[in-house]
Amino acid sequence: MKLTILGCYSATPRTFTNPTSQVLEINNHIFLIDCGEGTQVELRRNRIKFSRIKHIFISHLHGDHFFGLVGLISTFRLLTRDTPLHIYGPKGIKEIITLQLKLSNSWTDYPLHFHELISKDSVVVFEDEKIKVSTIPLQHRVYCNGFLFQEKPGDRKLLMSKVLNYDIDVAYYRSIKKGNDVILDDGTVIANEELTDDPKPVKSYAFCSDTKYDENKIPLIKGVTVLYHESTFLESHQHLCATTGHSSAKDAATIAKKAEVGTLVLGHYSTRYNDIELFKEEAKTIFKNVEIADDGKVFDF
Amino acid sequence: MKLTILGCYSATPRTFTNPTSQVLEINNHIFLIDCGEGTQVELRRNRIKFSRIKHIFISHLHGDHFFGLVGLISTFRLLTRDTPLHIYGPKGIKEIITLQLKLSNSWTDYPLHFHELISKDSVVVFEDEKIKVSTIPLQHRVYCNGFLFQEKPGDRKLLMSKVLNYDIDVAYYRSIKKGNDVILDDGTVIANEELTDDPKPVKSYAFCSDTKYDENKIPLIKGVTVLYHESTFLESHQHLCATTGHSSAKDAATIAKKAEVGTLVLGHYSTRYNDIELFKEEAKTIFKNVEIADDGKVFDF
Repeated sequence: MKLTILGCYSATPRTFTNPTSQVLEINNHIFLIDCGEGTQVELRRNRIKFSRIKHIFISHLHGDHFFGLVGLISTFRLLTRDTPLHIYGPKGIKEIITLQLKLSNSWTDYPLHFHELISKDSVVVFEDEKIKVSTIPLQHRVYCNGFLFQEKPGDRKLLMSKVLNYDIDVAYYRSIKKGNDVILDDGTVIANEELTDDPKPVKSYAFCSDTKYDENKIPLIKGVTVLYHESTFLESHQHLCATTGHSSAKDAATIAKKAEVGTLVLGHYSTRYNDIELFKEEAKTIFKNVEIADDGKVFDF
Repeated sequence: MKLTILGCYSATPRTFTNPTSQVLEINNHIFLIDCGEGTQVELRRNRIKFSRIKHIFISHLHGDHFFGLVGLISTFRLLTRDTPLHIYGPKGIKEIITLQLKLSNSWTDYPLHFHELISKDSVVVFEDEKIKVSTIPLQHRVYCNGFLFQEKPGDRKLLMSKVLNYDIDVAYYRSIKKGNDVILDDGTVIANEELTDDPKPVKSYAFCSDTKYDENKIPLIKGVTVLYHESTFLESHQHLCATTGHSSAKDAATIAKKAEVGTLVLGHYSTRYNDIELFKEEAKTIFKNVEIADDGKVFDF
C-alpha cells in the first residue's frame, strides 16, 4: 500500500504548496483522492501514469479539493484516453463538470461515469474481489465524505509440506485455501488449520479531510492500518476549529488514539504556519505513531 | 506598457509550462488576460499584487484559457478582498462560476460583476479617461474574442517658454492643452501649434489567441504597438491549423505584416515542440520584429 501526497495544504495553491490531492496504490489499483487545482501537474511531477487512474474520489465541493478535476478530465481526452473513468463525489459534481465541458464544446471521448453521493451514512461506493471502498461521513461546513479503502482477506496459505503428508487430490486445494477441512476417502477429517496458515494481513486506509472533531466516525475507522486525518490548526488556534469545521493536530491524534489506528498521517495544514513539524509534535503528545504529510512525500505501508 | 507572460503554452498545464494567462500593465491598470489552471500560482511567482487586479478578460471557454478563474475568484475571497472585480468573457462564464460557488457554499464577499459577451462584432467592453478596451472577434472552434487595449491620447504638451512670451492668463492653459488656439485681448490669434507640442504617442496592445488565420481582424489591429498572436504550429504542421482553428508562426507573421504592427509576440505553442525558437525563425522570414513569449518573461514596450 503506497500513498503519494500530491498536495496537503488547505485553502489555496501557492508557489510551493498544493491543495489536497493524493494517490493511493493498493492491490494494483491507483485511486486518486481529491483533486485541487494543479493536481494534473503534480501527477506528472510524481510520475503517476495518467492512464492507470480509473477512479477519482472527491470528498467535498470546496475548491481546494476539486478545482483541478475538470482540467484533469479534459487532459485525459487530449491524451486520447479510451478507458472509462469513474468519479465519486457529492451531488452537483456532475453538473459542474458537464456544464464546463458543454460550454467548451469538448465532451470526453472516453466513458465518464459519475457516482453522486447524498447519503449521510457510510455507503460502499466501489468493490471488487480484492478491495472495498466506502464513504466516511464527515462533519464539515458542506456535505463531505472521507473514504475508507479496505483490502479483502485473501485465501489461506497452503502449507505444502503438510498437505503432502496426506493423499489429498489437487482438486481439493482451492477448497482448503478457502478454509474448509478435508475428509479423506477413509473418513478421516483433517482440520484446515493443520494444512494452512492465515492469509497475509489485510491493510486499510482511511482518508478524513475535511472535518471537525467528531467521534461518530470512530467505529468506521476502528483499527485501520493508516488514518489520514486533517489537522488544519495547531493548538494555538483551537478556537477556530468549531467555526471553520476543521480539526487541530491534537483533535486528529485523539481520534487516532480512540480508533486504535496503526499510523496517523497529518495534513491539510493552514498556510499560516511555517513549520509543519509542530503538528507532529503536538499530535505525538496524545498518539505515538504520527507521520506528517508533505507535498511529494511517498509513504509505503 | 508592461506585459508579463504567466503562461503561453496550449492545451494542458505541464510540469514546466503553463496554459495561457498574461498580465498587461498599462496606465496604472493591471489587466489579467485569460486565466488557465495555475494562474494564481504564477501571479504569486511573478509577484503581481492580487488586489491590483480589477479586470479579467477571458477570450473563450476552452479550459486552457479559463480553468484557473474559479480558483482565483475563490482565493480573492480568502484574501478578504473587498474591491469589485469585473470579468469579461463569453456568455456562460457567469453560470460556470456561480454554480461552483453555490455548490461550495462560498459566495464572494466582494462585488463580482460579469460582463458576458455575445457580439460577433467588435464592442467596447471597458473605457475610462485614459484607456479603451474592445473585443477583437476571432475565428476559433468556439466563440472567441481577442482584446484590444488602446491608450487614449493625452493632453498636448504646453511649451512654457513659448507661452510666457505672451500675456496669457493661467486659466487658458487647460484649453490650450486640449488643442485650442488663444485669442489675446487685442484680438491677436495665437495658433495652438505655436504653444504646444504633440502629446506623447499612445500605445496599444492586441491580444489574439486562439484563432485560425483570418484577415478580418486586420482593420481592428492596424498599426498597434504590440500584437500577441497565437502560433500553435510550425510550418511542418500547417495542415492542422484549419481543423483545429489555430495558426502557424507564418500565419501570425503574415497578419502582423499586413496589419503593420510594431512588434509581434508569438505564443500558444503546441507542447509537441521542444524548441520554441523555431517559431521565431519561421515568423522572421515574413515579419522582422518578432518576439517569442515564454512563461515568466516580461516585456517592456
